Amino acid sequence: MRIELEKAIQEVKRRGAKRVGIQLPDGLRRRAFEIAEEIEKECNSEVIISGNTCFGACDIDFHLLEEVDVLLHFAHSRIGTSEKIIFVEVSHEFEFSSLLSEALPLLGRRVCVTTTAQHLKALGSVKRFLEENGKQVILKRSRRTGNLGEVLGCDFSAVERDADLLFIGTGDFHPLGISLFAEREVIAADPLKNEVSVVNGEKIRRKRYLLISKCLSFEKFGILVSTKVHQRRLNLARVLKKKAKERGLKAEIIMFDTILFDALQNFDAEAYVNTACPRITYDDTELHPKPLLTPDEFLVILGEKEFHKISMDQMH
Amino acid sequence: MRIELEKAIQEVKRRGAKRVGIQLPDGLRRRAFEIAEEIEKECNSEVIISGNTCFGACDIDFHLLEEVDVLLHFAHSRIGTSEKIIFVEVSHEFEFSSLLSEALPLLGRRVCVTTTAQHLKALGSVKRFLEENGKQVILKRSRRTGNLGEVLGCDFSAVERDADLLFIGTGDFHPLGISLFAEREVIAADPLKNEVSVVNGEKIRRKRYLLISKCLSFEKFGILVSTKVHQRRLNLARVLKKKAKERGLKAEIIMFDTILFDALQNFDAEAYVNTACPRITYDDTELHPKPLLTPDEFLVILGEKEFHKISMDQMH
Repeated sequence: MRIELEKAIQEVKRRGAKRVGIQLPDGLRRRAFEIAEEIEKECNSEVIISGNTCFGACDIDFHLLEEVDVLLHFAHSRIGTSEKIIFVEVSHEFEFSSLLSEALPLLGRRVCVTTTAQHLKALGSVKRFLEENGKQVILKRSRRTGNLGEVLGCDFSAVERDADLLFIGTGDFHPLGISLFAEREVIAADPLKNEVSVVNGEKIRRKRYLLISKCLSFEKFGILVSTKVHQRRLNLARVLKKKAKERGLKAEIIMFDTILFDALQNFDAEAYVNTACPRITYDDTELHPKPLLTPDEFLVILGEKEFHKISMDQMH
Repeated sequence: MRIELEKAIQEVKRRGAKRVGIQLPDGLRRRAFEIAEEIEKECNSEVIISGNTCFGACDIDFHLLEEVDVLLHFAHSRIGTSEKIIFVEVSHEFEFSSLLSEALPLLGRRVCVTTTAQHLKALGSVKRFLEENGKQVILKRSRRTGNLGEVLGCDFSAVERDADLLFIGTGDFHPLGISLFAEREVIAADPLKNEVSVVNGEKIRRKRYLLISKCLSFEKFGILVSTKVHQRRLNLARVLKKKAKERGLKAEIIMFDTILFDALQNFDAEAYVNTACPRITYDDTELHPKPLLTPDEFLVILGEKEFHKISMDQMH
């Protein structure tokens, strides 16, 4: 794992920042003290570490931002334009030729390659390797981050529906999301496990249909809004609430900073509609005490959308 | 349970508030929809419900406050002066004469009575009952809320150390806190269980001593700060960090909105010092993955305070 700390330290020095905040995703928190100490020593600045969630570049600690001159946000690609936030690159390096060789026979001639922030740096070499092996490589730009080939849990705009799909990265969530978005299977190459697998979201789609059917008779819905700045869809929530009330359903807006499963248990809605991070809706859906729907899925319940027209929830 | 909703609705109408936020502690959330609907109907206002924690009047949802004209905060006594926040009284009514009759023989002549917000209304009758039974009743004013006889997890200023102590309310936390603060036993009368018990914090004090001893050899401490406005002790945290570093220890400030046990697990400090809500330190101490100390207890580790001079952590 390579953390571009040196570059960040130069920038902190250049700005003469007296107070520096740092935000790290869970996987990096074991190194928080070491990183804080290095900044304190090199920049002679005070460091404050954020303890709140840091699930993505949408998850900025604004309370901490107010306290500091610069906020170093690690391991996510930039969203938004705040000058006080420095996005610090963290990249995983991996030996890709054997992994990709395994994927080659599973792919047709036109291949759209996607990945997450920590493997973006490898995409150039991956493209060359695939081209040398007779593939035509498509890299589309992510609407949210502007990076070629990057997918987020809320943005699959870098996915080309008409090509074969290769995802490089860890975990099930992104390849499942890509498959749901493109309605075709995804070849997932995991550099951590050094393993290639075929991922198909069809099973999840059927599960979503079942979940919606279950909610068709419900009368009491909580519409969830997050106050995180790049997730805040209060206006969408208002529209959904109004439509629900017009149909004689009970619906109230519940506003969260981070949406926690425990908190949902205390309210007595029969189901929830999540307007915040789509990953909360799709991922770990079995952990939720009550059904959790996307805005689109709720429109099916309200009779405003047809079942088969539901698409992946994404942020624009 | 009696919720003073009518009064709140009149005030919302008087102010002509178009947008109303509501904040309810966990125990009241099952009634959130019902309360929201009544306000929407009576005031013709839009209601947004807070989903975040609501542990006390220190736990104001400032994101929601920004969105609304008034914020109704239920079941806690006022702290602070924001005009946009209306504190809505929630009181438990109980039949106290049999409960108090049971407590009488356990109390001397001078009795200091304390309780929590939901039983404040009963204190007048309790006082009369005790006086009719030959007691001299002391009701001291809480420094934080200004109410007679009220204790909070962070403020025991209504406790008179030189009198016998009667606490009316539920749960172990407050009577244990009172006992630790006053260094004497507390007669706790629980109106929900209709039960009187004798509570002594001495066992907890010995546990705290053990915990401090365990940390004496540690070298890496996380100093926790909450951004909740009435809990924010960043300057205290800075002083503690500086003192720790002067002694060659590693110490970093970690800032949270709500301090969650899970998040503490991801950092690799050997112990934490909590400058936020004292209840987090004392309550459920066994749930913490690592030792959690009060600022005073940390001063013992830093050699700046003697063991026996540790007092209850309180907010001023």
